[in-house]
Order: sequence, then C-alpha cells, then structure tokens
Amino acid sequence: MKGLFITIEGADGSGKSTQIEKLKKYLESNNYDFVFTREPGGTIISEAIRDIILNKDYMEMSHTTEALLYAASRAQHVEQHIKPLLEQGKIVICDRFVDSSVVYQGYSRGLGIDNIENINKYATLGLEPEVTILLDIDAEEGLNRKKDQRELDRLELQEFDFHKRVCEGYRELAERHPDRIKKIDASLSVEEIHNEVINTIEQIIENRYNNSK
Amino acid sequence: MKGLFITIEGADGSGKSTQIEKLKKYLESNNYDFVFTREPGGTIISEAIRDIILNKDYMEMSHTTEALLYAASRAQHVEQHIKPLLEQGKIVICDRFVDSSVVYQGYSRGLGIDNIENINKYATLGLEPEVTILLDIDAEEGLNRKKDQRELDRLELQEFDFHKRVCEGYRELAERHPDRIKKIDASLSVEEIHNEVINTIEQIIENRYNNSK
Repeated sequence: MKGLFITIEGADGSGKSTQIEKLKKYLESNNYDFVFTREPGGTIISEAIRDIILNKDYMEMSHTTEALLYAASRAQHVEQHIKPLLEQGKIVICDRFVDSSVVYQGYSRGLGIDNIENINKYATLGLEPEVTILLDIDAEEGLNRKKDQRELDRLELQEFDFHKRVCEGYRELAERHPDRIKKIDASLSVEEIHNEVINTIEQIIENRYNNSK
Repeated sequence: MKGLFITIEGADGSGKSTQIEKLKKYLESNNYDFVFTREPGGTIISEAIRDIILNKDYMEMSHTTEALLYAASRAQHVEQHIKPLLEQGKIVICDRFVDSSVVYQGYSRGLGIDNIENINKYATLGLEPEVTILLDIDAEEGLNRKKDQRELDRLELQEFDFHKRVCEGYRELAERHPDRIKKIDASLSVEEIHNEVINTIEQIIENRYNNSK
C-alpha cells in the first residue's frame, strides 16, 4: 500500500461534519492528492446492502444480521473503492469506519467489542487506518449544560443514555488502540480543533515521507 | 434448547435430495414432531439478502462480501426460524448449514476454513447441530467411472477440480469434528444409505430421550 488511510470518528454533536469540511478545504488549497469517502462509499453493492439494513419493512432483523450486513457493505467498499485508491498512492480519508460499528453496535448495543472487531477484521481483510482522529466529547458535560435550563423528560433521558454509552465507547476504544487513535478535545473552539486535526495529519504525512526517503 | 438440531451435507451427486425425501417420509409415518428447513429458510430478510448474492448485475462482488452476506442470511434464518422451533422442542432438520459455507467458500474457494467457521460461529450465536449427516462421495471414483467412457474436456476438468476440492473439504471437516459429523458412504445403495441415516437419527433421539429421563 503506497497510500495513506485516515479515518475520522466522533459521537453526534462532536462537530465532525464541520471539521471534515474545513479539512477538505485545507487539503485542496495545499494540493494534496486525497479522496474523501464514507460508507456505503458509492459502490452499488454496498448501497443495495444498506437498503436492506434501513428498510422499515424489516423490523424483525436481528442485531447479528444487521452487524454482518454492515460488515458485508464495508467489505465491498474496501475492496472496490478504498484499496484501489491506496494502491494508486492516494490519501484516503474516511468519515467513520470500523470504530463506529465497534462503538455503536459492539459497545452501546452490547453485541461485544471483540465480536464486532473480529467480524470487521475479516471484512476489511486486516486493513487498518494509519491514524484515526477521534473528536472526543464528554456526554455528562453536555447534559450539565442542558440541565441548567430544565429537567430532561423520559425519552430524552433514554437518548442521553445511548449517547453517553457512545461517548464512553469511543474513549474505551482509544485506550485499546492508543497508537492509532488520536483523541482531540471537541470542547475546544472550531479553529483550535481544526489546527489539531491538521497538525495530526501533517505529521503522519511527514513521517510517511521521511520513512520512504 | 429442548429440541434437536440435525443437518445434512454432501457434495453434488451424493444423493442428498433423494435421502432427504425418504427421511421425511419415514419421520412422517412414525409421527415425529419435526420440521425440515433449508436456507434462506423462508424468512423475508434472508431472501432479500440471497437476492443480492445471486444478482447477476453484481459481478464485482468480492468473495469476502459474499461470505458475510451468506452469514447474515443464516443469522436471520437461525434467529427467526430455527431457534424458535428448537425452543418449542421440535426436531429441526436443515438441508445444508455452516459446513456448506466452510467447504464451498472456506476450503474450495480458498477463503480459509477458520475464517468462515469464525464468522459463522458469530452468525449462529454458537448454535451447532447435534449431529451432521455427511453423504460422503469419492470424487476420484466418479471420475474413473467417467474416464472409462472418454477423456474430459478442459471445462469438465475445471469443474471436476472444484468438485474434488468440495469432496476433500467435507472429509477434512469430518476429521475436524469427528463427534458431530457422521460420515455415510454414498456409494452404497439408496436403501442401505437410508437405513444408515435412520439408524443415526434414531440413536440421537434415543440418547436424548434417555438422558432427559
């Protein structure tokens, strides 16, 4: 693999979309040879699989079936889109990847981190990001800000519980993979976060460049 | 699980369909409380997944994607159909199950026996047949009979190579799981095989009955 594979992760409200837009502009204006992607990654097969996952007629779908379908969709995205780009030497930046499945399904839904990691290790044929940028937010902090205004109702509390497990799951994952996952404090200002994202990516590119000299 | 889960496996030409028909008649006439099933097992979701696997517009599908889709289809079949029947105490007999994926994809296509076994262990949530009846045929023997008549052409030889790997794969699997897989010599007469199938199943049922007394 000559290219560089980078993923970006973060819970809802972490400012991921904003940071991705700013990062795209930065890479464009600095003439990097990069491609942004996200699942289902524009492959027809991955999209057909996604249609099954999201079909509201299939409410009886088991969690296991769903996890395997996500992995199947990802396998096709990797094989048909990401790997060929990396082989051409491109920088490929993916908005969410295996870590999202591990956190949302393995951790938050309780299907087991190891289970989801193992299926996806097979689905990606072992392809791992060189670096994963995690926009780290504190679910409690968000709640405290909201609580100052009023009490949460039952549904909001349920939603918050799930959100909290997602934030915790990402932190646990960052502890499991300290070399790969670079945590950035998402409570900083947009510009501060952007600078940290850029520094992380520039450093990875520089390391790669120096190592290949 | 109060029920009894039995699978039947064998390469093309092993006489599996004939034996299944005879077994059904035997179980019916002896008033056993059994259900026959085969993938996709009549679940709408498994069928939708099968449609993707078999769609001829998707020639670019990777082997990995295909293996994960088969596993996803099986997961739904197990969760929605097989497990509830076993919980009701029924004898469930399935025409092909995990072993077929392991042999056809893991062994014959070279995706790795361990890989396919691991994915399917997850897909079935560890559900294993109490006994698997393998109708064991010798690919070489079949070829020798054919060769007496004339030489095989190139395509027939390719097909034979694949068929041979399937027969070998089943034998390797039977060695890996000697307690579960009961090999029956498929070169015997239809009646002889039928009697062996019945003896195997009667013994399993008797063991279960005696153990639960």
